[in-house]
Amino acid sequence: MKNIFLLILSTMILNLSCKKQVILANGETNSVAVETFDIERIEPKNWWIGFKNSHLQLLVKHPNISEATPSISYKGVSIEKVHKADSPNYLFLDLNIDKNVLPGKFNITFKQENKNDLVHTFELKSREKSGEDFVGFNSSDAIYLITPDRFANGDTLNDINTNLLEKTIDRENDYGRHGGDIKGITNRLDYISDMGFTAIWPCPLLTNDMQESSYHGYAMTDFYQVDPRFGTLDEYIELSKKGQEKGIKLIMDQVANHCGIKHWWMKDLPFKDWINYQKNYEDNIDNWNWEKTKFSNHKRTVNQDTYASEIDKKGMTDGWFVESMPDLNQRNRFMAKYLIQNSIWWIETLNLGGIRQDTYPYPDKNFMANWAGAIMTEYPNFNIVGEEWSTNPLLIAYWQDEHKNKDGYDSNLRSTMDFAMQTNIVQALNEDESWDKGLVKMYEGLANDFAYTKPEDILIFPDNHDMSRVFTQLKGDIANTKMALSTILTLPRTPQIYYGTEILMNDFEKPGDHGLIRTDFPGGWKGDIVNAFTGDGLTGEQKDMQSFLKKVLNYRKDSKAIHEGKTIHFAPFIGTYFLFRVLDNEIVVLILNKNENPITIDLKRYSEIGLDDKTLKNIITDEDFIWGDNIELKEKGVIFLSTKK
Amino acid sequence: MKNIFLLILSTMILNLSCKKQVILANGETNSVAVETFDIERIEPKNWWIGFKNSHLQLLVKHPNISEATPSISYKGVSIEKVHKADSPNYLFLDLNIDKNVLPGKFNITFKQENKNDLVHTFELKSREKSGEDFVGFNSSDAIYLITPDRFANGDTLNDINTNLLEKTIDRENDYGRHGGDIKGITNRLDYISDMGFTAIWPCPLLTNDMQESSYHGYAMTDFYQVDPRFGTLDEYIELSKKGQEKGIKLIMDQVANHCGIKHWWMKDLPFKDWINYQKNYEDNIDNWNWEKTKFSNHKRTVNQDTYASEIDKKGMTDGWFVESMPDLNQRNRFMAKYLIQNSIWWIETLNLGGIRQDTYPYPDKNFMANWAGAIMTEYPNFNIVGEEWSTNPLLIAYWQDEHKNKDGYDSNLRSTMDFAMQTNIVQALNEDESWDKGLVKMYEGLANDFAYTKPEDILIFPDNHDMSRVFTQLKGDIANTKMALSTILTLPRTPQIYYGTEILMNDFEKPGDHGLIRTDFPGGWKGDIVNAFTGDGLTGEQKDMQSFLKKVLNYRKDSKAIHEGKTIHFAPFIGTYFLFRVLDNEIVVLILNKNENPITIDLKRYSEIGLDDKTLKNIITDEDFIWGDNIELKEKGVIFLSTKK
Repeated sequence: MKNIFLLILSTMILNLSCKKQVILANGETNSVAVETFDIERIEPKNWWIGFKNSHLQLLVKHPNISEATPSISYKGVSIEKVHKADSPNYLFLDLNIDKNVLPGKFNITFKQENKNDLVHTFELKSREKSGEDFVGFNSSDAIYLITPDRFANGDTLNDINTNLLEKTIDRENDYGRHGGDIKGITNRLDYISDMGFTAIWPCPLLTNDMQESSYHGYAMTDFYQVDPRFGTLDEYIELSKKGQEKGIKLIMDQVANHCGIKHWWMKDLPFKDWINYQKNYEDNIDNWNWEKTKFSNHKRTVNQDTYASEIDKKGMTDGWFVESMPDLNQRNRFMAKYLIQNSIWWIETLNLGGIRQDTYPYPDKNFMANWAGAIMTEYPNFNIVGEEWSTNPLLIAYWQDEHKNKDGYDSNLRSTMDFAMQTNIVQALNEDESWDKGLVKMYEGLANDFAYTKPEDILIFPDNHDMSRVFTQLKGDIANTKMALSTILTLPRTPQIYYGTEILMNDFEKPGDHGLIRTDFPGGWKGDIVNAFTGDGLTGEQKDMQSFLKKVLNYRKDSKAIHEGKTIHFAPFIGTYFLFRVLDNEIVVLILNKNENPITIDLKRYSEIGLDDKTLKNIITDEDFIWGDNIELKEKGVIFLSTKK
Repeated sequence: MKNIFLLILSTMILNLSCKKQVILANGETNSVAVETFDIERIEPKNWWIGFKNSHLQLLVKHPNISEATPSISYKGVSIEKVHKADSPNYLFLDLNIDKNVLPGKFNITFKQENKNDLVHTFELKSREKSGEDFVGFNSSDAIYLITPDRFANGDTLNDINTNLLEKTIDRENDYGRHGGDIKGITNRLDYISDMGFTAIWPCPLLTNDMQESSYHGYAMTDFYQVDPRFGTLDEYIELSKKGQEKGIKLIMDQVANHCGIKHWWMKDLPFKDWINYQKNYEDNIDNWNWEKTKFSNHKRTVNQDTYASEIDKKGMTDGWFVESMPDLNQRNRFMAKYLIQNSIWWIETLNLGGIRQDTYPYPDKNFMANWAGAIMTEYPNFNIVGEEWSTNPLLIAYWQDEHKNKDGYDSNLRSTMDFAMQTNIVQALNEDESWDKGLVKMYEGLANDFAYTKPEDILIFPDNHDMSRVFTQLKGDIANTKMALSTILTLPRTPQIYYGTEILMNDFEKPGDHGLIRTDFPGGWKGDIVNAFTGDGLTGEQKDMQSFLKKVLNYRKDSKAIHEGKTIHFAPFIGTYFLFRVLDNEIVVLILNKNENPITIDLKRYSEIGLDDKTLKNIITDEDFIWGDNIELKEKGVIFLSTKK
């Protein structure tokens, strides 16, 4: 734990001397040189002018700060209220920022009896663009999900940081750090863009100063700091900037439910209810008895269930996700503000194109609605996707904004995750055809869209960083994998593909093993024999899949029909499934065929689409296809056609 | 087919002579004897005064009736419009019935050129009670579902009817007629009532003059006639009346989707679009080629699916259910009126306590909403349950009235069927416990109630006449069967139990076989060695189950907490599941325990219910139980407790 304090000290800027405004007896002011000290921590680290919400709450941390009296002298900024916490080492300042305030720096002075003043310089920046101009990812995008530690090592100098608890790099250890970083992603933006992706979602990049398994990023120990092993804040900003130049939005992976147990505030929590089951933790801090800890019961349905018992609701929301991740209490209003402001700080700082919120149903759901609402109020065209791991369409529908829920709840969340359709697609392809198995799962699953507010805003994916790789789920069947990927990229959804899918990454050896799922991307490390960026050393099957995905993604990039067109599909028919996306003159045809042997399909059944005698282009082979009386499907696989030349 | 005409002839009342009002030259009227003939068929057979809807449409069938001019002379009744059909042998008369019309009989005279007048005496009856007084089944009821041919043979004289196509009775044939009838049910109302049921739903009792398998009743060949092998209209009315005296509501099983192919109108259809794919049928009537018939694709999701193709929608709605059941075209407005009036005729004639509508998603869904709406307008406290065989809660929710569907559809249907929860219950009991298997299926399934308009109006059942018997589904496990039944009777639902469940009827021999599922109820036939009505010859296990179900049903009968109380349940815990129903001072406790070996459960977890130190009664054993620190569960099974003495 001492290391955290060393880290904090090392990041403190000590202003040993500064100017102080003193009011003289004659009413004039004068500057005199006095000895002052900066305070240990103020968060958010800065703020901006021009938000709709004129309030800002600063968390101030310093030994015995509760005894100090803060003041600000800056036109348009006033301290509305000062809140003491349960710990004497915190103050929370409510500031009001006038509409007409000018950007600039000003001092916050903390007057202490019989001690020197503490002075902190705080900056109000001007905003680079208006809130409306932050356009979130949407159905016109295809998102590349990246586990940063495992994608590319752009800077070997940051691989090891001896100030942090996990001090080693070990590419042989599935759960150790491998050295991938922000620079590595930035260096590969051309590859990502060329593949046809228009957004990236890297797993969390903030400091996880945890003893082990820190590589995944979900146990944050500082909500305002980039993990030095991933890089610097400037590098994160550079990633966003360079991405935007190439048409790639940056999505930040955030966590409002929990922090890492080595978070800096855990040794001195501001309030008695800053985290859930806090007393339990504090009573055992030196002799931590995990059995006494309350873990979440993971009964996510209590969020909707009108019959749920109070004890189950508390168990779900307040219990810890795992023993290394204390559960934040968002019902503490200071915590709530802290998390909301933290998200806004990152949106503004990184010029984000979206947020992915972890473990969405675990925090207090009213807080989550307020959190998303606060963000969407400032950034009406932004997007947030919440992770609810459920195959129940009722829950997927419930969490999406504007859904008419019986309990009146509106999440303000534009995007939810379609684990239901993901499962349907895999089952549809793996199962033998029958009246209730196989492709009918896909057909009936998609029919459920009638219940969603905006299906196109829902995230669809073949897999993600917590699931077995889609190639493994589909039992190593290339044709099935192509069918799954092209379906995902054609549905009225916002698609996400996990890095490495394009080169058939798999976890056959130990299906579902997190270490294995998050395998290093070949070519991301100097000396890698195989290089998926250049194609060197890839097998024929890998190259073929990479090229296949590239073609579908690049077609999708400009396909208005896929982004916002009408969807028409036909009930599966002798092992085939036809899905059409239509907008004006663009008609996209997706044909899935599960038959191993050649079959001929009469096209009369599909005449309502209006394709008769039209010439279409096969997106994969570039060949022309005339929509005549029938189509011969020679082998199992996907046919992907378009009327667009 | 000739037999149908014999039947029609036999039911015709030929008025070979009657009085006719003649207007004399001096303006006076005088009665003179003239020769007139009644017409072949007018439907509805009669009507009532005092409906909110003052319109009535009569179907008139008679050779060349289209050339006749109808007239009515009765104060308050007028012919608003006369519609010719495509066949010359039909007329449709729109009558208006004034609010102040008096009940009584009047003649409808059909003037024919160069022929005698046709005269039909039609009756407008007064209603026995107001529409508001027709109270439909609801969550305070427990419904006994009966396959009439297989329950009890009350009148052996009606077993065989040589005027009908299926002329044999054969109890050895699973798909033949066994002789059960209305009288048999009426005779056993005391048994049904003593068991604790408060409603009966006999499968259809109208004429099915089909060559074979006519016993099931779903291939109706006359929508206004009781099948003579089941009894007479008077006997049906008697069943309703005697049932009501014993507190048992009568639910009628109706079919708006199709008729039997031997329906009287099939040889001379009134319109070219009276049934779907009619031309296909007519072109082949003498050389019926089933392959040319269009059968339903059974893709029921097209009713909701906004992406469904037109051809699939037509295939679902217009296709025939099976080859022996022509699909009625409810988009023909005369057919629509015919079906609506037919339902109202039966409600009024039988003093019904509800309708069960077969194959609900198969007819035109807008018609179905109009049909249910017309009924619920006349009978606002009535109830209709529609059969949608789907385990998808989205569909169950969609079909229930007042659900906020995105497409604006309101079914006007108060009750839907909970195949989802039925499946959950069976899986919950059959599966070994794990984080996503076993009792959690029941817990999470019930959580879906948040999405239903009125969960208590949804029908729940352990099985029905189309499913494998619940004892078979639960692999012959008595404890599991008791758990399933008591759960079904405790949930916030309207429960339905299929006859024979109480004596462990099963289909182990050939699971799912319709003949086997619909086994004769022992004791229903003279000479039966086993008699489940008296208990003679039942095994100990059968007697035990019968007594168990009787206790639960009879407790439920007066349990306001189960009928309308609050529901609270707790996430499954080491193989147990606790569910509470609470209203005022009545608290009902259902404990399911899947552990084979004794376990002790700490009751502290359930303290929010407020039962501490209270004395409860065990509904099954009549023993007292004090709600103390813990409860010892000695063996697998259900504990059913109540605070009510």
